Amino acid sequence: MPASLEVLTALLLIFAAAKAAGELALRLRQPAVIGELLVGIVLGPSALGLVGRPGVGILAAFHGEQAAAEEGLRLALESIAELGVVLLLFYVGLETRLRDLLAVGWRAALVGTLGVLLPLFGGIALMLALGEPEIESLFIGVALVATSVGITARVLRDLGLLGLPEARIILGAAVLDDILGLLLLTIVSGLGETGHVEVTQVLGIATRALLFTVVVAGVGTWAIPRWFSLVERLRMSEAPLVIALILMLGLAVFAAQLGLAAIIGAFLAGLALADVAEDYDLERQALPLYTLLVPIFFVMTGLRVDLKAFAQPATLGLALLVTAVALVTKAVGAGLGAFGRGWRSMAVVGVGMVPRGEVGLIVATIGLAEGVVEQRLYGVVVAMSILTTLLAPPVLHWLLGPIVRTRTLQSAEVSTMTSRGEGVSHHDTAGED
Amino acid sequence: MPASLEVLTALLLIFAAAKAAGELALRLRQPAVIGELLVGIVLGPSALGLVGRPGVGILAAFHGEQAAAEEGLRLALESIAELGVVLLLFYVGLETRLRDLLAVGWRAALVGTLGVLLPLFGGIALMLALGEPEIESLFIGVALVATSVGITARVLRDLGLLGLPEARIILGAAVLDDILGLLLLTIVSGLGETGHVEVTQVLGIATRALLFTVVVAGVGTWAIPRWFSLVERLRMSEAPLVIALILMLGLAVFAAQLGLAAIIGAFLAGLALADVAEDYDLERQALPLYTLLVPIFFVMTGLRVDLKAFAQPATLGLALLVTAVALVTKAVGAGLGAFGRGWRSMAVVGVGMVPRGEVGLIVATIGLAEGVVEQRLYGVVVAMSILTTLLAPPVLHWLLGPIVRTRTLQSAEVSTMTSRGEGVSHHDTAGED
Repeated sequence: MPASLEVLTALLLIFAAAKAAGELALRLRQPAVIGELLVGIVLGPSALGLVGRPGVGILAAFHGEQAAAEEGLRLALESIAELGVVLLLFYVGLETRLRDLLAVGWRAALVGTLGVLLPLFGGIALMLALGEPEIESLFIGVALVATSVGITARVLRDLGLLGLPEARIILGAAVLDDILGLLLLTIVSGLGETGHVEVTQVLGIATRALLFTVVVAGVGTWAIPRWFSLVERLRMSEAPLVIALILMLGLAVFAAQLGLAAIIGAFLAGLALADVAEDYDLERQALPLYTLLVPIFFVMTGLRVDLKAFAQPATLGLALLVTAVALVTKAVGAGLGAFGRGWRSMAVVGVGMVPRGEVGLIVATIGLAEGVVEQRLYGVVVAMSILTTLLAPPVLHWLLGPIVRTRTLQSAEVSTMTSRGEGVSHHDTAGED
Repeated sequence: MPASLEVLTALLLIFAAAKAAGELALRLRQPAVIGELLVGIVLGPSALGLVGRPGVGILAAFHGEQAAAEEGLRLALESIAELGVVLLLFYVGLETRLRDLLAVGWRAALVGTLGVLLPLFGGIALMLALGEPEIESLFIGVALVATSVGITARVLRDLGLLGLPEARIILGAAVLDDILGLLLLTIVSGLGETGHVEVTQVLGIATRALLFTVVVAGVGTWAIPRWFSLVERLRMSEAPLVIALILMLGLAVFAAQLGLAAIIGAFLAGLALADVAEDYDLERQALPLYTLLVPIFFVMTGLRVDLKAFAQPATLGLALLVTAVALVTKAVGAGLGAFGRGWRSMAVVGVGMVPRGEVGLIVATIGLAEGVVEQRLYGVVVAMSILTTLLAPPVLHWLLGPIVRTRTLQSAEVSTMTSRGEGVSHHDTAGED
């Protein structure tokens, strides 16, 4: 069997398992994403070891392939998963209007900033208190900073709540938070390598990241509604979808080149296309791609969990401590940013910002590569990243349960905001049922 | 940059190049697939060497990754390409009705059988005439047997001609031809390994392959219209598409496990779902997946071409000879099967069956692995496979040009067939514009 057919076999297994587990979760009144994450853990090295790192096990054993092929299989599956999360954020961007983001702009800035500062200093303080060296402490602090908004976006979308002001706040804050995280990473990497910070370098990266975001969000949403009709001159079939996908991939790759998360680029691509999405039916056309690829991302996220890695009590203890700090500081910091909107709104924003997903992993990987962070701390960051990702959806689901029925967090506040131009988003939400 | 982002970068490059080249081809009144194949060759090791085997070049050099990562990148891209060709044949299956296939059944059987026998004996005769050993000659003969129907299906679909009786004949013959090719491969592999043929093994494989085809085509098209409405009981969103995709991946993998081409399984899955496709809007939902993934398959096909491999005159000569025999025997054999339908119909069927694509490559790979075929002959089969793939689309396009306007190959014959129940397919075709 050629190697590419093994990937097809693994995809079949992952996709079918994701959908079966998602269906089961829905019947138990849980979000489908919980089922997908859990089935990933079960298929992964912790339990069955059917697919994933390092348990590519069954597939390799089956076909008598060697370690190199396993590595290739893993990369192939992870790439397809990466395409999945890129599509997820692109899709969320298509459903988001820039004006709705700007309407919650200062709120998102406050949530983003507080949600960065508390985890950063909380992480550093914890590590120093435990007697760890300064540079390691700094790295752990930075690894706790950046929210990975994929999980929360998925839960909100599954519940049809992307139109809530809280959803806009979380999305806006996540973009800001990713930029701040990038800057901190640059500073700490500089410290790790040379012992001092290159101010010009940091300023350069800050400028590029901000420029990228502002140009794509601002110029994109201005230019695309004006010029997108040019796609009608193309002879190829499905030209609007093709151009939208090229924009999505292009901005995702470009964001990654700038050091931002690829998903930020994909989200901005969706945002820029949001105003033409309806005319060209982009959401409905992106949906089949979403349906196939997004569950693969979540199963692969579960597959990375190896519970056996925490057999050592000391590592397990540190992992749980760091995770607790990551949870509490982010939830409190981001939640405080939503102060004055009522406890449920604060809780939704706080918990919605908790998942660290792949961003914390990227920081840990860089720390490991530069020799600043050793394997033990790497494992701790991986655990933190996964645990925060796993814990957020059920809590969010529980917090948002009542809203699915009433469609408002604080009826008074929302009706005030509606009169300021939030009506569109509520209309959108209602349309998603 | 993580490895999965390199795959994303390569995908962006491949997808954008495919679409740009396809657009250019369309403007030059050529099928888009020609543009995609050619841009693949340009990006491949022959010219720029941007992506592909062995020229993962630029990407690797760019990011300082090593050979293992290149291998992984290649596998990731080939897997996505494999998913693309699986989707292509699934889509073609959705647009095909079993009754239309059965209506041309004996014709397809004749085309398939003659289209297998002539290349087999032609290949053997050529090699023996050149003084090559018997077992190598047998292998080359078998490598010339099986048509890879993806290219032809794509050209017919691009032209909106999947409803032509000729399209049905080609699709039906390709299924049969794949089964015959599998049986011949088993026989020759047995000869290569043990020097004699295990009759029980051959009968076993024949039974399995036929059973698979008949059960999926027969039972599937009977059962699915009756039971597919069960998907409405699922709580997951997009349940019909999800179940259709699981069926597609499942049958593709199962066909591959049986030794058939994965695309045969995907085609049969589409065929089984064809009767419910309209009710559940499956074609329109599969189209975005087609739009993203199918061009990647054709660019990757082009990427495999390394023109430098034919710098040696002797190898080049043999490759051209084998390719000529592959072309002529298949076109004449399959074309003869369409005897009595007029020269254009015979030519379309003959040329439509010419591309060998990945099936010949699989035979060559097995021959290489078993040590029956050496590197030189492997390269020859690769060249034959690629050249037949590249030559068929422009010839088909030229042959079919007049039909795109008149929508009939032989107005007299078609109108006779319409009265015998071919009306549906013509209706379908008209609906594709």
